[in-house]
Amino acid sequence: MLEKLFNPESIAVIGASRTPGKVGHDILKNLLTGDFSGTVIPINPSADTILDLPCHKSLAEYGQGVDLCIIVIPSKFVIEATRDAIKAKAKAVMVISAGFKETGEEGRKLEEAVRDICRSGSARLLGPNCLGLINTTVGLNASFAGFMPEKGGISIFSQSGALCTAMLDLAASRHLGLGKLVSIGNKADISEVDMLNELANDDDTTVIVGYLEDIINGDEFIKAAETASAGKPVVILKSGTTPAGQKAAASHTGVLAGSETAYGAAFKRSGVIRADTFDALFDYAALFSMQPLLKGKRILIITNAGGPGTMAADTVEKAGLEVAELDINTASALKDKLPRAASIGNPIDVLGDADPERYAEAVKVGQADESVDGIVVILTPQAMTQPAATAKAIAEEIDGSKPVVAAFMGGTEVMSGRDELARAGLPDYDSPERAVDALRAMHEYALWRNRPPRRVTRFRVNRRKVERIIRRHQQTDRLFLGEVRAKDILKAYGFNTPGGRLASSTEDAVEIAQMIGFPVAMKIVSPNIIHKTDLGGVKLNLTNPAQVEDAFDLMVMRTRQKAPEAVIEGVFVEKMADKGLEVIIGMHRDEQFGPMLMFGLGGIFVEVMKDVTFHLAPITESEAIQMLKATRSYEMLEGKRGQKGVDISAIANCMQRISQLTTDFPQIRELDINPLIVTDNEPMVVDARMTLDELNTMGRTSR
Amino acid sequence: MLEKLFNPESIAVIGASRTPGKVGHDILKNLLTGDFSGTVIPINPSADTILDLPCHKSLAEYGQGVDLCIIVIPSKFVIEATRDAIKAKAKAVMVISAGFKETGEEGRKLEEAVRDICRSGSARLLGPNCLGLINTTVGLNASFAGFMPEKGGISIFSQSGALCTAMLDLAASRHLGLGKLVSIGNKADISEVDMLNELANDDDTTVIVGYLEDIINGDEFIKAAETASAGKPVVILKSGTTPAGQKAAASHTGVLAGSETAYGAAFKRSGVIRADTFDALFDYAALFSMQPLLKGKRILIITNAGGPGTMAADTVEKAGLEVAELDINTASALKDKLPRAASIGNPIDVLGDADPERYAEAVKVGQADESVDGIVVILTPQAMTQPAATAKAIAEEIDGSKPVVAAFMGGTEVMSGRDELARAGLPDYDSPERAVDALRAMHEYALWRNRPPRRVTRFRVNRRKVERIIRRHQQTDRLFLGEVRAKDILKAYGFNTPGGRLASSTEDAVEIAQMIGFPVAMKIVSPNIIHKTDLGGVKLNLTNPAQVEDAFDLMVMRTRQKAPEAVIEGVFVEKMADKGLEVIIGMHRDEQFGPMLMFGLGGIFVEVMKDVTFHLAPITESEAIQMLKATRSYEMLEGKRGQKGVDISAIANCMQRISQLTTDFPQIRELDINPLIVTDNEPMVVDARMTLDELNTMGRTSR
Repeated sequence: MLEKLFNPESIAVIGASRTPGKVGHDILKNLLTGDFSGTVIPINPSADTILDLPCHKSLAEYGQGVDLCIIVIPSKFVIEATRDAIKAKAKAVMVISAGFKETGEEGRKLEEAVRDICRSGSARLLGPNCLGLINTTVGLNASFAGFMPEKGGISIFSQSGALCTAMLDLAASRHLGLGKLVSIGNKADISEVDMLNELANDDDTTVIVGYLEDIINGDEFIKAAETASAGKPVVILKSGTTPAGQKAAASHTGVLAGSETAYGAAFKRSGVIRADTFDALFDYAALFSMQPLLKGKRILIITNAGGPGTMAADTVEKAGLEVAELDINTASALKDKLPRAASIGNPIDVLGDADPERYAEAVKVGQADESVDGIVVILTPQAMTQPAATAKAIAEEIDGSKPVVAAFMGGTEVMSGRDELARAGLPDYDSPERAVDALRAMHEYALWRNRPPRRVTRFRVNRRKVERIIRRHQQTDRLFLGEVRAKDILKAYGFNTPGGRLASSTEDAVEIAQMIGFPVAMKIVSPNIIHKTDLGGVKLNLTNPAQVEDAFDLMVMRTRQKAPEAVIEGVFVEKMADKGLEVIIGMHRDEQFGPMLMFGLGGIFVEVMKDVTFHLAPITESEAIQMLKATRSYEMLEGKRGQKGVDISAIANCMQRISQLTTDFPQIRELDINPLIVTDNEPMVVDARMTLDELNTMGRTSR
Repeated sequence: MLEKLFNPESIAVIGASRTPGKVGHDILKNLLTGDFSGTVIPINPSADTILDLPCHKSLAEYGQGVDLCIIVIPSKFVIEATRDAIKAKAKAVMVISAGFKETGEEGRKLEEAVRDICRSGSARLLGPNCLGLINTTVGLNASFAGFMPEKGGISIFSQSGALCTAMLDLAASRHLGLGKLVSIGNKADISEVDMLNELANDDDTTVIVGYLEDIINGDEFIKAAETASAGKPVVILKSGTTPAGQKAAASHTGVLAGSETAYGAAFKRSGVIRADTFDALFDYAALFSMQPLLKGKRILIITNAGGPGTMAADTVEKAGLEVAELDINTASALKDKLPRAASIGNPIDVLGDADPERYAEAVKVGQADESVDGIVVILTPQAMTQPAATAKAIAEEIDGSKPVVAAFMGGTEVMSGRDELARAGLPDYDSPERAVDALRAMHEYALWRNRPPRRVTRFRVNRRKVERIIRRHQQTDRLFLGEVRAKDILKAYGFNTPGGRLASSTEDAVEIAQMIGFPVAMKIVSPNIIHKTDLGGVKLNLTNPAQVEDAFDLMVMRTRQKAPEAVIEGVFVEKMADKGLEVIIGMHRDEQFGPMLMFGLGGIFVEVMKDVTFHLAPITESEAIQMLKATRSYEMLEGKRGQKGVDISAIANCMQRISQLTTDFPQIRELDINPLIVTDNEPMVVDARMTLDELNTMGRTSR
């Protein structure tokens, strides 16, 4: 799809320059330096030749078509140049020049104009404000980055051009081969979504690495990332945390769900491996590009020193991996091959004077041991150590059946060994901790890849009823749905609520209470009151008619006093719910990624401990159960100290129904069920509320 | 104190060898290669000269005294050699040879014999099973490590010889100068405590770096580390996490307080900067050795690329530091010096084409700005970037008033800049995240250095009474103190308990209840029952004589049924405590570091959320308040949603009293007050228990 961008037959450079150091010169030079075999046409009105190539005054003067047009002139001339490119039938335009969206409103308009011109000619636009791209497959360096990297399977896209150069440089010094390197700049047209789609289908790419500061479209990103991740690992470093306090949303879920949480949920959903640091980005990419996937989490550590072995074992435990228990045959094989003083447990200590053969033997038996899923080889430079020969000996034993990583610790003395490791395709890390962290990332990706197929259950619900309620409220601009309406909607989606009715007078209240049976709860109903309890608008456990009378009169009186402008619709009289655990289920619609479901135990668990988990809707049953299990307070649900546990799958069922509701109705902006009372039986919605989006002028929701 | 070890005038090598590659050869060679100007005497019965030095058959044959004796012969001959060394009046003995404690019981005895011989001659012993030591001040390489490091202020001690070599190598490749490097091996005599004391008083050492797997003596370690930290930073990497489940202690505090927690508390108390990874060890050491301490936490970021600037700002926030708000004068100064497109906020973006002067200007104004405490300079290699010249230009501006760190990102292209940074004494990191993490560690150390003086309050208590209770129980081997006795002890230390008495009959119980007034609580009293509630041995809120009668009879009957062997002393009848928040205060005596105090909110906070904090006794008031504030549930104490907060300082007072009690009585092994009811008034001990140590045969506690 981006064929003409990555693999053009002819490239025009509008703004080619004779002056070394100028971008228009360096790009041209880079185009000529690599193995690129297509035509390169420098365009410059005031030069006859540049770098021995005939130069043209304009594309029009050149007169023939071009595939890719690289524009390197001041921003105010870019529109004209883009028009020329389209006239020359370019199918790809790359605008290196800055001076667009990043400079403000005027620049943004200019950028949109350039994009629209490209679209009108069915050309794709890279940039503006970018570094260009490199495609090692065809030896194309269409960037002003200094040099052509080694060929390899890691392809990179980056929203920061400067990081592109740093990554290019780092990859070279770590001997990591690259496929494509793309600076996506301002992302006027080609964005992270295009890159994910493109690189997913690119046979030369085995690992996709990305640096992002924001995302253009959450849904599309998730779709593209999920598809890409299904085929090959996608490692992303995302910077740009939302400043604290930027959000001031209306409900609980909204407050708890920051945009970082949403990115986390989106990455998790789509199998993206998140790198938290710049180091980690390459630590992970190196492992993924060089080694097979982990099949389990049992790690063998081989070391010539006790200390670093212990450090590695510590990190394995902390990372949620396991220190493998070796097979009995492995132990006896090692006993034969290693000196008596060697430790043949795990870590295997091949001793300080270990020669290459000892390392090789240990790797060999570890690789053959079925109770080992991955191997970390640690080497410290001691008197007898031969780093280079050891690296070679290890490399010869590698059969590709399971990932093997190395931590050759030190500096100059182990450098020869590190070079050998790189040559042999063995990822090497500065410390055991980083080696193990890379395996952890791989393990999490492997779990995602092997996850059961996602089957989202569709429940039979009364969708038309909800549609009517929502439409009526939106049309009359009553966007906050209090307890009564929210419960009507939830009932239509299969939730249980305690029986109850709205009472408009004291007598009415008593009559309802007697009909549904004592004890009852009573709650004031007003579209203007969100925190009923704070106004004394809730009374629980009323056991006789006199209490109901008193509660009604007091409640109405106090509400009138404290909130005189509030419209009181009546008092909701409801059967008291059975005792059980209180949980909270919520939904907050993230601007980028849509409906984020929240789960937590109620009361202090959510209010004080913020012990909640999130997941993007739609959700499957196993994902819902994972959400419950991921709370720190999960054991409360299982039952503590001989207390009966609650019905976990019934809660998961509720999560799925909310998932369906919020997928069916994008008009619902926020939703909270708090509390949902859960027992070993059917959960019961005791209180709930929702907020809707405004209708926009088209009579549709504004979203 | 270790003068003859680090600065000997004469050194004998027992086991010197002519064969290159043998340790006895390499050490001798290393001794001769450096600037060491003292006498070196090779000892070998079958050689005339080694490395052109006259060789002696034995120390006796040599006939003169020596300061330091290095022993490099098989372990079975080491005792004899050590005796020779003492006869030659050696004041320091270094045993390189392995084959001691690490091999088992026999080796341990051998090791102790060697140590005792040294002690009898007032000689200090390094090792056995070590790599030796290096002292760059006098050019002494008394180790078999390959080369002499650059001179510098970082001194290292390590329990792993292999890590010594890796650190030596790494220091060289990061251009870090070292003072002393000591491999402490099996620590038969010289341990981490000696090293801390020695390096604290060593003028050539500015930063102490240690690698430890265990600690010989917790009290001494804390004392030595605290003294050392007061003068210079101590950075320690500690490996060897306790395997899960090793501990099966009796009470709550014991279960929650693992040995890792104890190390954490000990390091925190003594100002030790803990490195979690091998990378961090050097990241921190580099910063501390090269730059002045942070005076505050406001960080300025200077960058030539937006992305990495954002990454740094993210990390600053996450690390608990602050992105500095620049002074208005800084902004206007920058406006004059930088191009219009540059961002003069924080991060300061000097733009992709920044020359060295722009960086220098930014550093200069940042250094002058009083609202900046530390500076991170980020450089990515772009087309116009001059890494080396930029490093030089920055270095020229540094005035040493605040720490400046760099992250020159990339590999080969920025290497020249990194070398310049190292030369200029500017620490440089692979990524902005690691640069900021080092500043975080420095900030925490600075906070510790500037902490208010520790003044431990001594309360007036009835110590003699507690002494009597404890002695009586130890003598009769009743080591578990139930509620009644534990409360007696706590009362003697100034705690409040609800009034109450032990009832031995139903009538007795009713009489006590009427005397103290209803409502009352009743609890079974038996030395054999730890979990009263589980046996139905607790009844609360009894409001009349009939209920008290029923409770007494039922309780005794059920206990007899369910625990027929339990000795029932009676039933404790107690006034019901007022309502309030439940907190738990505990003490668990760590084997290494002594009394670890614990605090947490009761109920689910501790049982489900494990939301507890620890501190080593003795504790000051401000430390106690810190413990409370460090719980995630602290806001419960402050009062939530208009509820009244509790008396924080009253809880801190209780913590301090427990601190005093457990410091006064090392016989108390475990202690739990659960719950302590806290209100806005005096806290009340509602339940408590303690465990004592056994008396040993000497009539003293076994500890």
